[in-house]
Amino acid sequence: MEIKDIELRAIHQEPEKYADREITVRGWVRQNRSSNKFGFIALNDGSFFKPVQVVYEADAIDNYGEIAGLALSSAVRVTGTLVLTPEAKQPFEVHAKEIVVEGPSDPDYPLQNKRHSMEFLREIAHLRPRSNTFQAVFRVRSLVAYAIHQFFQERNFVYVHTPLITASDAEGAGEMFQVTTLDLDNPPRTEDGAVDYSRDFFGKKANLTVSGQLEGEIFAHAFRNIYTFGPTFRAEDSNTTRHASEFWMIEPEMAFADLNDMMDVAEDMVKYILNYVMEKAPEEMAFFNKFIDKGLLDRLHHVVNSDFQRVTYTEAVELLEKSGADFQYPVYWGVDLATEHERYLTEQIFKKPIFVTDYPKEIKAFYMRANEDGKTVAACDMLVPGIGEIIGGSQREERYDVLKERIRELGMDEADYWWYLELRKYGGVTHSGFGLGFERMIMYATGMGNIRDVLPFPRTPKNAEF
Amino acid sequence: MEIKDIELRAIHQEPEKYADREITVRGWVRQNRSSNKFGFIALNDGSFFKPVQVVYEADAIDNYGEIAGLALSSAVRVTGTLVLTPEAKQPFEVHAKEIVVEGPSDPDYPLQNKRHSMEFLREIAHLRPRSNTFQAVFRVRSLVAYAIHQFFQERNFVYVHTPLITASDAEGAGEMFQVTTLDLDNPPRTEDGAVDYSRDFFGKKANLTVSGQLEGEIFAHAFRNIYTFGPTFRAEDSNTTRHASEFWMIEPEMAFADLNDMMDVAEDMVKYILNYVMEKAPEEMAFFNKFIDKGLLDRLHHVVNSDFQRVTYTEAVELLEKSGADFQYPVYWGVDLATEHERYLTEQIFKKPIFVTDYPKEIKAFYMRANEDGKTVAACDMLVPGIGEIIGGSQREERYDVLKERIRELGMDEADYWWYLELRKYGGVTHSGFGLGFERMIMYATGMGNIRDVLPFPRTPKNAEF
Repeated sequence: MEIKDIELRAIHQEPEKYADREITVRGWVRQNRSSNKFGFIALNDGSFFKPVQVVYEADAIDNYGEIAGLALSSAVRVTGTLVLTPEAKQPFEVHAKEIVVEGPSDPDYPLQNKRHSMEFLREIAHLRPRSNTFQAVFRVRSLVAYAIHQFFQERNFVYVHTPLITASDAEGAGEMFQVTTLDLDNPPRTEDGAVDYSRDFFGKKANLTVSGQLEGEIFAHAFRNIYTFGPTFRAEDSNTTRHASEFWMIEPEMAFADLNDMMDVAEDMVKYILNYVMEKAPEEMAFFNKFIDKGLLDRLHHVVNSDFQRVTYTEAVELLEKSGADFQYPVYWGVDLATEHERYLTEQIFKKPIFVTDYPKEIKAFYMRANEDGKTVAACDMLVPGIGEIIGGSQREERYDVLKERIRELGMDEADYWWYLELRKYGGVTHSGFGLGFERMIMYATGMGNIRDVLPFPRTPKNAEF
Repeated sequence: MEIKDIELRAIHQEPEKYADREITVRGWVRQNRSSNKFGFIALNDGSFFKPVQVVYEADAIDNYGEIAGLALSSAVRVTGTLVLTPEAKQPFEVHAKEIVVEGPSDPDYPLQNKRHSMEFLREIAHLRPRSNTFQAVFRVRSLVAYAIHQFFQERNFVYVHTPLITASDAEGAGEMFQVTTLDLDNPPRTEDGAVDYSRDFFGKKANLTVSGQLEGEIFAHAFRNIYTFGPTFRAEDSNTTRHASEFWMIEPEMAFADLNDMMDVAEDMVKYILNYVMEKAPEEMAFFNKFIDKGLLDRLHHVVNSDFQRVTYTEAVELLEKSGADFQYPVYWGVDLATEHERYLTEQIFKKPIFVTDYPKEIKAFYMRANEDGKTVAACDMLVPGIGEIIGGSQREERYDVLKERIRELGMDEADYWWYLELRKYGGVTHSGFGLGFERMIMYATGMGNIRDVLPFPRTPKNAEF
């Protein structure tokens, strides 16, 4: 591939290669300072986290006045010589011979070089990717996505696109958005006055998916190891720093794998992601460590070097009860652990990531495999310091009769699960899987505190701008 | 990562490593033939396209009768010795010492070893991934997805997740699905009786996106080179072999790149994908070439070895007019080329992939850059033999005033494009991008003729099963 000019990344990676040579680069003005004789532009083209310093002199370029007056975010083409400056703060700079303004910027550019609140930056989501923080966030987001694909593809997992629009409410994991082409002002109605969904686009009521897991199980019974990576939706009217209405999920599913096998894969995946991003984005990670979350790199290094502990829910509850800690919510066998409990376990008791396994069946989903004790299921949550739960998984109930009975017991409609049950009828096997909320992983890897700031264009209640 | 037992893929890749050793494998019975003394199972665990032959003898295993009677798709665990058989049709086989049934299958298993119609297989979309055709299709789908990520990541493109739910009708590229949490039976209404969208989830009317391009341009103005890869929706009530209501798109966007730069990237990408899949899935590609589309591999090899021709729309129309060919639809300057015209150009005239460039502005989108001639825009379509258009792209209009005027000229509401226009106000630069329909690429790479058969669970009018 030939892309004209040199990306600034190339210079950062091999400055010696371009030393004392004439180069042409393009980018946007991030800073511009000048006296009446010379000036400096911090130039960034988005290909690398750090800018390149361009030095321009009144004696060297024709349009000194124009350049000295350039507004932030103006786009320029610079021709000049790359000079190594090993004693200076930046190890090289470009001495300009010519600077051409390719795209001027207006002086009212909203993203001036001062601290802006995260709230304000969300309002200018079309410009915030140009700021340091969001350059770092969205490059890391891209790298983590790729690390996940690479991890699974190296292991021969098949990537499956499970459907987004679904006519079943099979998992029941959350409130759903309805998808329709009916005219809401005047929808067709049946004789008894109800909306006639037989005339909707799909011939029945349709929604946006809350999980691709059940369809993922279909593919695990064909390809052994598969993963999904796609968007997921929740129509919950909750305004928290951890919830968005549209987010991305990774849901691997493995046939011939029990809960322990699944935990091995989940642990390896988390370590792989964190190692990848620390290796591929050292500048961005140093930025987060300095400006966003001071303990970040220590914490991540500790995670990749730890053997994750495995503890049963029953043991975990005992440890919490014995701890004497003063929790806001009481802890006892049967309770759904709150974030404070999860964080106490991973941060105070074990001081490293842990898997809590074998939860009471009443607080877990219908498809999780029943344990012999009759009280618990083969589920697990991965808890990490600083955040709590980051992954939830389970061994799936592969026994046709047990699954069918559980569906009935919970008052669910067996007919909705005809194909899910048939997986157990035609060669169903031990299988397990887990779900990773992609944004939660990005928050964990960057230290960013609000899910709205790791999504390019977050969707939350009353907000679908851009 | 430790996954218990050996995947069958490992044996296929290095049979010598396991020769004469005792191994344990698991998988599903694809074929089962037996006499009263011995039998053969074709075993597949989904990790590799081809099965492994398991030989079992009445004298060697305890449960010969059970195994000989096993229904197709039963799951078994086999312990035995791997024996190399260089003179036989399959180069190795497993001589079983023990076969344990882990998941029996019902004898009414619908996917028996005979030819099934594609229509029937769509009805059992939870089982069809186990058939040869769909093993090949969905593994290739996974590999092509990864090839695309790898291509762009190697070139430092940032992967962006553009939003699926959108409150703008900005591109107007097609009919949209509405997304709502209102009670359709009894929606809230304003004083004048209209549905009150201020009380809908997002506080206004919301839809599923038809393209991430406009948001992609935002990120190209921050990161230079970016790509999207996500689902896209069309609510068109058209039942063709090439249209689905939910499909995946790849939309790269490059700053400081003109139409020619863009075509370079598109050509490189297509070649990269095809080379990748032919290298990584030779068994699957040979299967397609033999059973689905006899000229497939020749055609694909030809494509990867061709320099794609570039021809203007005006030249292309002249060539078609001069060809004397008998087209169903007349061809003249100004017409939107039909598939028959596209295929004639790429198959008969040029005999290789081509880019047609500089289309009349009336038949192209508002955001494409106006050429100096006042009549055409800097758009291009990539046309390939056997299918016609596979990629559409353009240089984008980066001139604020020209874009604004075009928006007005087309009667669109400028206010809907406030942020899109602002990209041109704050350092807008020459930039270009294209869209690749992922399923169309899969159809092209496999020879599969219906989009319903390259999507795991296709959504089409009146159909959202699974």
